[in-house]
Amino acid sequence: MRLNIQQTAALLGEKDNILILTHERPDGDTLGSAFALCRALQLSGKKARVMCQDKIPPSYSFLYSEIEMQDFEPEYIVAVDVADLKLLGSEFKEKYEGKINLCIDHHASNTDYAENLMLEDAAAAAEVVLQLVIAMGITPDRVIAEGVYTGLSTDTGCFRYSNTTSRTLRMAADMIDVGISVNKINQRMFETKTKSYAALERMALKTIKLYCDDRCAVMEISRKMYAKSGADESECHTLSSIPRQIEGVLVGVTIKETKSGTYSISVRTHEPIDASAICMKMGGGGHKRAAGCSLQGSLLSVRNTILEHVKQALDEVVNTLVEEPDYLS
Amino acid sequence: MRLNIQQTAALLGEKDNILILTHERPDGDTLGSAFALCRALQLSGKKARVMCQDKIPPSYSFLYSEIEMQDFEPEYIVAVDVADLKLLGSEFKEKYEGKINLCIDHHASNTDYAENLMLEDAAAAAEVVLQLVIAMGITPDRVIAEGVYTGLSTDTGCFRYSNTTSRTLRMAADMIDVGISVNKINQRMFETKTKSYAALERMALKTIKLYCDDRCAVMEISRKMYAKSGADESECHTLSSIPRQIEGVLVGVTIKETKSGTYSISVRTHEPIDASAICMKMGGGGHKRAAGCSLQGSLLSVRNTILEHVKQALDEVVNTLVEEPDYLS
Repeated sequence: MRLNIQQTAALLGEKDNILILTHERPDGDTLGSAFALCRALQLSGKKARVMCQDKIPPSYSFLYSEIEMQDFEPEYIVAVDVADLKLLGSEFKEKYEGKINLCIDHHASNTDYAENLMLEDAAAAAEVVLQLVIAMGITPDRVIAEGVYTGLSTDTGCFRYSNTTSRTLRMAADMIDVGISVNKINQRMFETKTKSYAALERMALKTIKLYCDDRCAVMEISRKMYAKSGADESECHTLSSIPRQIEGVLVGVTIKETKSGTYSISVRTHEPIDASAICMKMGGGGHKRAAGCSLQGSLLSVRNTILEHVKQALDEVVNTLVEEPDYLS
Repeated sequence: MRLNIQQTAALLGEKDNILILTHERPDGDTLGSAFALCRALQLSGKKARVMCQDKIPPSYSFLYSEIEMQDFEPEYIVAVDVADLKLLGSEFKEKYEGKINLCIDHHASNTDYAENLMLEDAAAAAEVVLQLVIAMGITPDRVIAEGVYTGLSTDTGCFRYSNTTSRTLRMAADMIDVGISVNKINQRMFETKTKSYAALERMALKTIKLYCDDRCAVMEISRKMYAKSGADESECHTLSSIPRQIEGVLVGVTIKETKSGTYSISVRTHEPIDASAICMKMGGGGHKRAAGCSLQGSLLSVRNTILEHVKQALDEVVNTLVEEPDYLS
């Protein structure tokens, strides 16, 4: 059942001992949104804590350093920014399947596995959480503002991507006015590369190859490259935005070899290509401009599978492309 | 003489046949601000046009594609985002020295070479221009909004840098609400690399070396690298942000060899290092976190000169650094 902001605020008002779950391989939006909600619930006198199947990367530690990790038997379970149960991670999926009461999300591909507050036009789950927090009667403090700002900024590439709206920018402005150290957050999230990440990035850039008449760029990251650079998979989210940046490219693909030997695929597109549609054909999902999936097999077969789907998607729009008016060019 | 917004609006109200000058090697802020002001003047029934000593890079063509380039004998000359006469470029400096009536700027290092509307706390000249346009009684149309948004976003690294305030974000939100194609602008400004730029970036990344106990990173771009990659100097502004991004680095330096054989230096810093102070010692200037200068000599001597000044600046704050509280770490 789909809920609106007011219904969800009223519902949460009746609950206590609330466990908040994030998706696996957590990013700034799932974490920022979850900790902001946790703080708001605690400020309204409830017990709440956040759990994630995977280790939270140290760069996000500021999000919870001032939040009490309360111990209690969960009576109500909320998933934040988790479009599909399997995105909890296999361990948490097994543990929490059928037990989640509420889902707060902004993914069109949401599978409605619980009562659902889903705002598809929100740039980030943090946009939904901020509206919810305000509807709960809580004035955002610095901790909430840092969580919300981190969610807004990380899910929009710091307000660059096409999901950014004037509302996103105004919400971010409001969070800055709460008194957060936005410069330190931006520096940490967008302007800092570890030496190992910088080394991995150099290696990854060398692998970029163009396909489909230079409309598709593919970048490949092997386990060997992680080992050689010393980089950690958790610090590599931002790599996925690189292939799409090459002029003329409409589909940027990043193929990452995982520890288990499968491949984790990120697809980023420019208008009018639908990344989510491409990834759904390979068992994944996401947003129109950014989506993902997992594939098994050899690197060659994985790459060919992806390119086949990308080619189909490009072929479907090729006529539109020629005719597309672009006042910028 | 320093003017405020209202005084400047009143002053411009009395003038006509207005020539607007940008700085040499024009960027998004000088161009966006200049064309937004030009459009506003034209909308208020005046004749106005924009001139720049250097060729305007094609990626900015959208800023003027709908503005009439009016022909007239200039009666009033305004420089926008030009902190120092020499930033007009040598040719324009010679032509316009002593003839500029008004300067609209946001650089603390401004040399007050004309009547001056200078707002030091503005993230971009575009912030000053937007306030001025509104004070002139003009409601921003799409052309003005695109100019202002381009200035705001390019001078803040798309709202990442420490100069970004909640006012910057709200102004950007207002411009989006005018109905600009913000996604196309962001894609063009931040998410598109030409193949030649991507090749140059790969080469430049390889040159990065760390100095001063890994607090300073230096990247070097030679004429050979331009030739080999096919990249144009005008598309390389964003390279300068790369060296500062390495974890632990407080001063990022980019040394670019120019056509005339001198070196153009960009310095980007993190708190508490003052980039402008470092560059002023070498005859340049700019902002606290981003500044520049030009140096002559061999690459080795240029690099040593810079490192000497960087080392001094780092030595001055080394005690502060140890004691600096940082709730993010």
